Amino acid sequence: MTQIDLNCDLGESFGHYVIGNDAEVLPLISSANVACGFHAGDFSEMHRTVARAKENHVSVGVHPGLPDLEGFGRREMKVSPLEVYDMTVYQIGALRAVAAAQKVRLNHVKPHGALYHMASENEKIAEAVVQAINDVDRDLILFGMDGTWLTRAGESAGLHVIYEAFADRTYQEDGSLTPRSRPDALIKDIDQALGQVLQMIQEGKVKTAAGGAASVRAETICVHGDGAAALAFAGTIRSELQKRGITIAAWH
Amino acid sequence: MTQIDLNCDLGESFGHYVIGNDAEVLPLISSANVACGFHAGDFSEMHRTVARAKENHVSVGVHPGLPDLEGFGRREMKVSPLEVYDMTVYQIGALRAVAAAQKVRLNHVKPHGALYHMASENEKIAEAVVQAINDVDRDLILFGMDGTWLTRAGESAGLHVIYEAFADRTYQEDGSLTPRSRPDALIKDIDQALGQVLQMIQEGKVKTAAGGAASVRAETICVHGDGAAALAFAGTIRSELQKRGITIAAWH
Amino acid sequence: MTQIDLNCDLGESFGHYVIGNDAEVLPLISSANVACGFHAGDFSEMHRTVARAKENHVSVGVHPGLPDLEGFGRREMKVSPLEVYDMTVYQIGALRAVAAAQKVRLNHVKPHGALYHMASENEKIAEAVVQAINDVDRDLILFGMDGTWLTRAGESAGLHVIYEAFADRTYQEDGSLTPRSRPDALIKDIDQALGQVLQMIQEGKVKTAAGGAASVRAETICVHGDGAAALAFAGTIRSELQKRGITIAAWH
Amino acid sequence: MTQIDLNCDLGESFGHYVIGNDAEVLPLISSANVACGFHAGDFSEMHRTVARAKENHVSVGVHPGLPDLEGFGRREMKVSPLEVYDMTVYQIGALRAVAAAQKVRLNHVKPHGALYHMASENEKIAEAVVQAINDVDRDLILFGMDGTWLTRAGESAGLHVIYEAFADRTYQEDGSLTPRSRPDALIKDIDQALGQVLQMIQEGKVKTAAGGAASVRAETICVHGDGAAALAFAGTIRSELQKRGITIAAWH
Repeated sequence: MTQIDLNCDLGESFGHYVIGNDAEVLPLISSANVACGFHAGDFSEMHRTVARAKENHVSVGVHPGLPDLEGFGRREMKVSPLEVYDMTVYQIGALRAVAAAQKVRLNHVKPHGALYHMASENEKIAEAVVQAINDVDRDLILFGMDGTWLTRAGESAGLHVIYEAFADRTYQEDGSLTPRSRPDALIKDIDQALGQVLQMIQEGKVKTAAGGAASVRAETICVHGDGAAALAFAGTIRSELQKRGITIAAWH
Repeated sequence: MTQIDLNCDLGESFGHYVIGNDAEVLPLISSANVACGFHAGDFSEMHRTVARAKENHVSVGVHPGLPDLEGFGRREMKVSPLEVYDMTVYQIGALRAVAAAQKVRLNHVKPHGALYHMASENEKIAEAVVQAINDVDRDLILFGMDGTWLTRAGESAGLHVIYEAFADRTYQEDGSLTPRSRPDALIKDIDQALGQVLQMIQEGKVKTAAGGAASVRAETICVHGDGAAALAFAGTIRSELQKRGITIAAWH
Repeated sequence: MTQIDLNCDLGESFGHYVIGNDAEVLPLISSANVACGFHAGDFSEMHRTVARAKENHVSVGVHPGLPDLEGFGRREMKVSPLEVYDMTVYQIGALRAVAAAQKVRLNHVKPHGALYHMASENEKIAEAVVQAINDVDRDLILFGMDGTWLTRAGESAGLHVIYEAFADRTYQEDGSLTPRSRPDALIKDIDQALGQVLQMIQEGKVKTAAGGAASVRAETICVHGDGAAALAFAGTIRSELQKRGITIAAWH
Repeated sequence: MTQIDLNCDLGESFGHYVIGNDAEVLPLISSANVACGFHAGDFSEMHRTVARAKENHVSVGVHPGLPDLEGFGRREMKVSPLEVYDMTVYQIGALRAVAAAQKVRLNHVKPHGALYHMASENEKIAEAVVQAINDVDRDLILFGMDGTWLTRAGESAGLHVIYEAFADRTYQEDGSLTPRSRPDALIKDIDQALGQVLQMIQEGKVKTAAGGAASVRAETICVHGDGAAALAFAGTIRSELQKRGITIAAWH
């Protein structure tokens, strides 16, 4: 039986500010990456998001980010590995208590935005994230891209690592994503996206932007819920995978 | 054997801003109320504070506050009981992970500033704080003043409640503190403070500001570490209590 | 010629969080109350909002609020009159520079949310807001409700005061708004709202929720732009007033 | 007559957090760089700081910083030139109103910390800062180091530029500062510092860390007030310069 996890960033609303379509995307996914009040979300939103995920039988994970609400955690900041360690411990702990109060067990950790990028590119930042998981709860699964410092650090520490791939991003020869600054970074055609996802799951390969092929480990696919188009995209991927006998479920 | 706990607010520094004399006050106390990044403190400071408390064999507790760094958590805000519940869960969780990463177990919860006051005066706010403790970790001890909604709510929920009393504040006939707005609110004379503490511990009574007497349950005494005078005050109380055969230790 | 100003809160988006329909509501109004980064908005949003208002020939005013993004400035906080003075000076100055950089002159000041409420109910807070306007730019017009401490303080200081009335809120016998907690606080029927607005403008009176009548000075009407219904509401009021020969324009 | 300006960062306290020795350093300097609530300071502190500067006949300037209180504005963030423009306009405006309310005219702008560094190294960031000054108040003097993008951009825009030099930092052959990461970055000997300052003022030259010589334009010297040593350092520089007939005064 082939199994794939579909993950999505959730709980990004803040105070009176609503963002995303959490109620609509939850039935489509198997893992929710829940913001923890640093780059998005707040303590009330975390409560609501865990409750909604529980109702939808969706696994809950931590989505730690940089302390930058204004920049939505997408602006790189010069933070030290120790600061990254400390902010990751803090955010895991905060969500863990919110979840525990609802008798929900956290399942994974996926760094957000600039922190995800920094942990992929920088060995020390990657180790800081991994050490934080290790020190708080070694049973938490680490999400990250194959071939990055993030997943390498997770593997070295003996964490359970789940490899993430993207439906709507093109890849380069080395298996990394085409930078968003390039015109061919995004896949907007649903058939192309679906084809890419299937190839990644079934063959462990992806056709690169340059026309070649790269190896890609795909155990969880990142989808989006912001906007009607993104929802349709996620829905199509879900139903097409299911039609082909692929089980949509979180890893444990 | 008579036992008393001495507690102090710690870990209130933020970023480059240093406040308090944590290193100096730690050898004098038995319980540290650690700020969690809402009214004071940050994720780095929490890490350092737990480490210092551990080195000094001081019990670590959560000091949840209102989300108001600018006002140091001392300004009342119109927050709902649900918001209080959520912010308390969040802050307990954050510190709990910081502590767990250092193999330290949290021992107590004492709300800070305006939240302490609101939880004392308002039944619903008190219940929200207690529910948060109950839902995250029922083994956490609640600190509060006898006769307040806070400790009543803790008692009703079956939490372990430790009653707090103050060395440097005068009391009124009903056992409540004289409001800070009144000129006789503070005790500045160390002998008077020590006499009050001893009477509270040994007789369960206090001489009121008006010259009468009130019943006071004193199981933990709040001391301060900000400034040389406060440190001397705390040091004197500690040594005088010890001279009289009273053990300074946290409750468990 | 009868003239009325239509004002609306604008520029409330923050970072990646979008709120309101500024582009749609701007053609309908004559005065924009622009958030200044305390309860909503940020420095980028302020820039964009002033530019949009300028394009639409809409007067720009300051919408100072409490420093509480999480609560959208709607939670009362215990702040001193001096703090209110300082935060109002600061916010006027910030928007004034943003406007000056686009060669736009600020026209008015309308406190936001809890600050508006506090300045209406509390003499000292009202005086603090008025003093701030007085000290930074006496030519700024003060928006407030007749019969409140806010407008009384403005009148005493000799500021140009413009009296605000509400299309979608019911009034009580004393000319104050029916509290939102009461079921009859809001007017949802557009004909009733329009009738109320016309009566306020033409007769200086309003039918109260209890069926009586109250005096109301209405020189600027507050409308909303959040949601399709609010936009339709504002559009109808605008067109119906114009049909009756009433000029929609800001006061200067 | 030789004239030199002594400038210092002031008003960096925040809420209950006190930092620096503003009262002690004010009698020693001629220009105060006042924090504006982004990297440090708050609206109350700005009020107090402008009042103190006025009492001491010290010129007041804007010290705009990155929106990062936790990092004290010293952590680089990936912000766009437009964001830098907007945050600089905002901060100039905020302080300008605070000053205007006390009938004080702002005299200069000196970016803080990471923003100072970024504006020195990056042409677009430099132009954004300069454009902000230009658009709000062209009479504001720009402080920056000679040979940087910041002062080059100011010169191109026709701003009045005042060149800043450092008493306690060593220089490299190209006239730039030795990075703080290097052991010889700081000058701790007061005689060496004084010698450097005199050489910079009188000859427009500095002995480099490597033993060579570099050209340095020194019209304002940056001093510090945090700690007894820094205060003594500043006091010595002031008195020694005055002994040599050099006038300590702000440029206008």
